[in-house]
Amino acid sequence: MDESPQSFDRVLSSMCTPPHPVAREAAERFLATNPGDPASFPSVARLEERAVDTLGEVAGLDDPAGYVASGGTEANLQAVRIAREHGRNDANVVIPESAHFSFRKAADLLGVELRVAPTDADGRANLDAVAELVDADTAGVVAVAGTTEYGRVDPVPALADLAADAGALLHVDAAWGGFELPFTDHAWNFADAAVDTMTVDPHKLGRAAIPAGGLLAREESLLESLTVDTPYLESRTQVTLPGTRSGAGVASAAAVLDELWPDGYRDQRRRIRDTAGWLADELDRRGYDVVDPELSIVAFDVDTRVFEALRDEGWRVARTGDGELRIVCGPHVTRDVLGEFLDDLDRRAADVGTGHRANPGAGSR
Amino acid sequence: MDESPQSFDRVLSSMCTPPHPVAREAAERFLATNPGDPASFPSVARLEERAVDTLGEVAGLDDPAGYVASGGTEANLQAVRIAREHGRNDANVVIPESAHFSFRKAADLLGVELRVAPTDADGRANLDAVAELVDADTAGVVAVAGTTEYGRVDPVPALADLAADAGALLHVDAAWGGFELPFTDHAWNFADAAVDTMTVDPHKLGRAAIPAGGLLAREESLLESLTVDTPYLESRTQVTLPGTRSGAGVASAAAVLDELWPDGYRDQRRRIRDTAGWLADELDRRGYDVVDPELSIVAFDVDTRVFEALRDEGWRVARTGDGELRIVCGPHVTRDVLGEFLDDLDRRAADVGTGHRANPGAGSR
Repeated sequence: MDESPQSFDRVLSSMCTPPHPVAREAAERFLATNPGDPASFPSVARLEERAVDTLGEVAGLDDPAGYVASGGTEANLQAVRIAREHGRNDANVVIPESAHFSFRKAADLLGVELRVAPTDADGRANLDAVAELVDADTAGVVAVAGTTEYGRVDPVPALADLAADAGALLHVDAAWGGFELPFTDHAWNFADAAVDTMTVDPHKLGRAAIPAGGLLAREESLLESLTVDTPYLESRTQVTLPGTRSGAGVASAAAVLDELWPDGYRDQRRRIRDTAGWLADELDRRGYDVVDPELSIVAFDVDTRVFEALRDEGWRVARTGDGELRIVCGPHVTRDVLGEFLDDLDRRAADVGTGHRANPGAGSR
Repeated sequence: MDESPQSFDRVLSSMCTPPHPVAREAAERFLATNPGDPASFPSVARLEERAVDTLGEVAGLDDPAGYVASGGTEANLQAVRIAREHGRNDANVVIPESAHFSFRKAADLLGVELRVAPTDADGRANLDAVAELVDADTAGVVAVAGTTEYGRVDPVPALADLAADAGALLHVDAAWGGFELPFTDHAWNFADAAVDTMTVDPHKLGRAAIPAGGLLAREESLLESLTVDTPYLESRTQVTLPGTRSGAGVASAAAVLDELWPDGYRDQRRRIRDTAGWLADELDRRGYDVVDPELSIVAFDVDTRVFEALRDEGWRVARTGDGELRIVCGPHVTRDVLGEFLDDLDRRAADVGTGHRANPGAGSR
């Protein structure tokens, strides 16, 4: 083939990161297996059970129900589907406007009314705004633990109380934040609040190979509404959205969770937190408006011409809905990489004449 | 890890097969890429375009629209979704009872009424039965080109005419059959009939790595109803069900389609056809009731005790809804493997005393 894979060196906007070496090794070994057919591929099915058990530990849940999904979109969609079946006809689901676009996809697919609550100025769900949208037809409320754009953590316990009062389920989307939050003071998981379902993706900060999302549920019975009969397989039912599934994703998740939970992820959290803090300081000293990084995403205002020039130079960067340049400090985004990025940013800002200071902290990396 | 991947040696019931060496090589190279974010991972996005173009050649369609899906379930679900948007409220979709269970999953998710038409005695869609279920609210009709249980091919042109007369879309599920049918006399594809959408999976007989399903559409406009905005990615919209997607699946599909289309797949068709015919003859000579293999699936009556004994010996076999043992003669299912299987079958049948002849054609392999 004449194409080469994009190197992750200059990918600063991805919620994913290169798989950990043990994840890659397991993915390659289990490439030709299908956990969607557990009677034919029993060993990878056992690895999936193990991965779900460890995900339960990550998320504060003994004896978790769930499975390794194709990604966060599938997990969020299945959670909305569980809520729909839990509710009445004409069910609605209330999300903060910071929720991932997969909820719009899910609502469109499932025919569920989506009610979108404005967030606070800092990007967290506003409790009053959510409460105002909840009514007798509300089947589910969504809290985000690590928003895609700014890494914000919603007030999960208060949202869970609000959902419980309405007889609705609470879903937490911790697709990206779930491997950083266990090492913070945030209240976000099954042990902290009356959470019913959660998305937490091994293939993001968990460092598994794509595709390895995670759907967790407090009770096995919550998965019942997802069940379909599987007439030609020796296993008799299936709860996943895809039929055939990636053994590479499942095995890599099991392997890396074994390897890194909890100490390896704790070290990773410390490293990426330090990097994000350092980057925010560097940008601040240059005079950029920086959105305070709660988790390891840094967003800052950028001139469109500078942004385009950086993309032309090969930097894989993206913007928030409000136009800030957004850097996800995954494990592959080191200070060395960011130092090169800052040099290019300084040069392009000077070319355009944005008035930002260039390299005020030279030598500080 | 203490688990080993299931070897494919004894897997006789899977629609999948080990990836071709060029598919494996490409999957490993592109493991850490995400075609769901084409602005950050442009090379794998180009490979996806190439794969879709070649899938169009496989399916008789110039300038195809579509994408590499997580598998046949996603592709079938998206086709039902396209039909739903094409129709009115209260849309129904008519399927033959031989259709894959993913259509039940799709209908449940999408809130679409599924009408199931009985098949002929030979397992093909019955035109009269389908016509009886089609009405003014029918938004889609499904034809199967290679059924999961018996490898049967529905009368696609007649079903397409029927759908067109009703103002409905025609979807062909060739998830498994699509890489065998181009080398047969069947009328099944976009060139043969007024087909609107099709499922054809590289990760089955196409020999790509999981996950690599295929959704094709005659016109780009058919995909419009799948579109969601993607606020934080530099690409602006997305039609796929998952967000993050497997670069391994996409790159492996592109690589193996380059390598095998058309001559390699023609040779493969000849080999698996010969094997299926040989197996059917061997079983017939032993006195089993064998369902005539139209494509390369062989099903035959089996005593439950024999079936269980074979599974206990490690054979990964499965049964149809009617209880026949079903062998999918994928490229990894060689005469040597089947010879060992027949020896075990003969021994177990003798143990149980089913009265079948053992090894009547010894030496004929």
